[in-house]
Amino acid sequence: MKNSKISNAVINRLPRYRRYLIELQKKGVEKISSKEFSELIGYTASQIRQDLNNFGGFGQQGYGYSVDGLKSEIDAILGLDKEYRMVIIGAGNLGHAITKYAKSITAGFKVCGVFEKNEKLIGTKLEGMEIMSYEGIVEFVEKEKIDIGVICVNGDSAQEVADKLCFAGIKGIWNFARVDIEVPPHVALESMQLSDNLHALAYHMNDIRKKR
Amino acid sequence: MKNSKISNAVINRLPRYRRYLIELQKKGVEKISSKEFSELIGYTASQIRQDLNNFGGFGQQGYGYSVDGLKSEIDAILGLDKEYRMVIIGAGNLGHAITKYAKSITAGFKVCGVFEKNEKLIGTKLEGMEIMSYEGIVEFVEKEKIDIGVICVNGDSAQEVADKLCFAGIKGIWNFARVDIEVPPHVALESMQLSDNLHALAYHMNDIRKKR
Repeated sequence: MKNSKISNAVINRLPRYRRYLIELQKKGVEKISSKEFSELIGYTASQIRQDLNNFGGFGQQGYGYSVDGLKSEIDAILGLDKEYRMVIIGAGNLGHAITKYAKSITAGFKVCGVFEKNEKLIGTKLEGMEIMSYEGIVEFVEKEKIDIGVICVNGDSAQEVADKLCFAGIKGIWNFARVDIEVPPHVALESMQLSDNLHALAYHMNDIRKKR
Repeated sequence: MKNSKISNAVINRLPRYRRYLIELQKKGVEKISSKEFSELIGYTASQIRQDLNNFGGFGQQGYGYSVDGLKSEIDAILGLDKEYRMVIIGAGNLGHAITKYAKSITAGFKVCGVFEKNEKLIGTKLEGMEIMSYEGIVEFVEKEKIDIGVICVNGDSAQEVADKLCFAGIKGIWNFARVDIEVPPHVALESMQLSDNLHALAYHMNDIRKKR
């Protein structure tokens, strides 16, 4: 893989390519041209060639892309050829939801523990795991070599939780709190603002109706 | 409000402005300059002025923005001054998670029903609501004047569910299935690909480590 400087836009498109490649694998498709891929995924063929050229020339002129080969290469680029160990912080509705989701869908990502400040919840079970006290999180992250902290607390304490995770040596934070948080440059951060997305949907619904 | 042609990028930033305005309201702040807002939210002051000018000049030279005024105006732009009626389709892990989430956080968005194909789940309760048969969804959407369908089924049937919702006259679709779906132009669509976001996080974690 070439891997010089790849834009965030390209990185954000790779998981989508990957999803389509998995669908093609399921259907037994072995190779695909950029034109066919374009019709499937909705990007232009030239966009697809440009995106995938960032990582070296998988595609052969007149042959197209090997579905298995491209999928493996994207896995390697994204780092999905290893396992990541996660902790969930916050065992309220949101934490429960995300724990369920993470346990059900994400091959390569293992939920190793759930932490909570609310004493009433500590010691109870969530998805088969005993909820632990937030007090012990730094020790747990260090000892269990946790890679990713998933922040599911409410906004008020999200930054404090992020600071603690960074102090404990976490490598990445996946933030579901409804506030933006800051992390030092050696920690990766992705935020899911579900309500922002829902609010954008409301806008588009109204916008479509105004135009009709 | 002016409201000519506003880019998607601006629309996607408005919910974020709104979250910061709500924080300011909680702290009792009544007005804010674009410079102060810039330090808070992390966009440049000129970006902020440009974004908000899309909707008419709220800001007064030398005074800044009225926090309440700007929040109300953004609510009106996004269409958050009304209530939206939602149905959730799919009562598995993901549907349960999203129902919990939607019920706990989204003022202005009301979950009116949960639908499922799996006969074992139909008639059981989810978050206090009786899970209904997917067979009855068109009638329910029409009769209950449902605005938004939230797709939480697995990928294989997501497009079929979307087609049915569109047939029933839905105005917007919020898609959590792990596939991309297509809708006619009069229906608004937003997709949340949680796993895409997690995969981008994995990439950035590895990228940071390579550079160190």
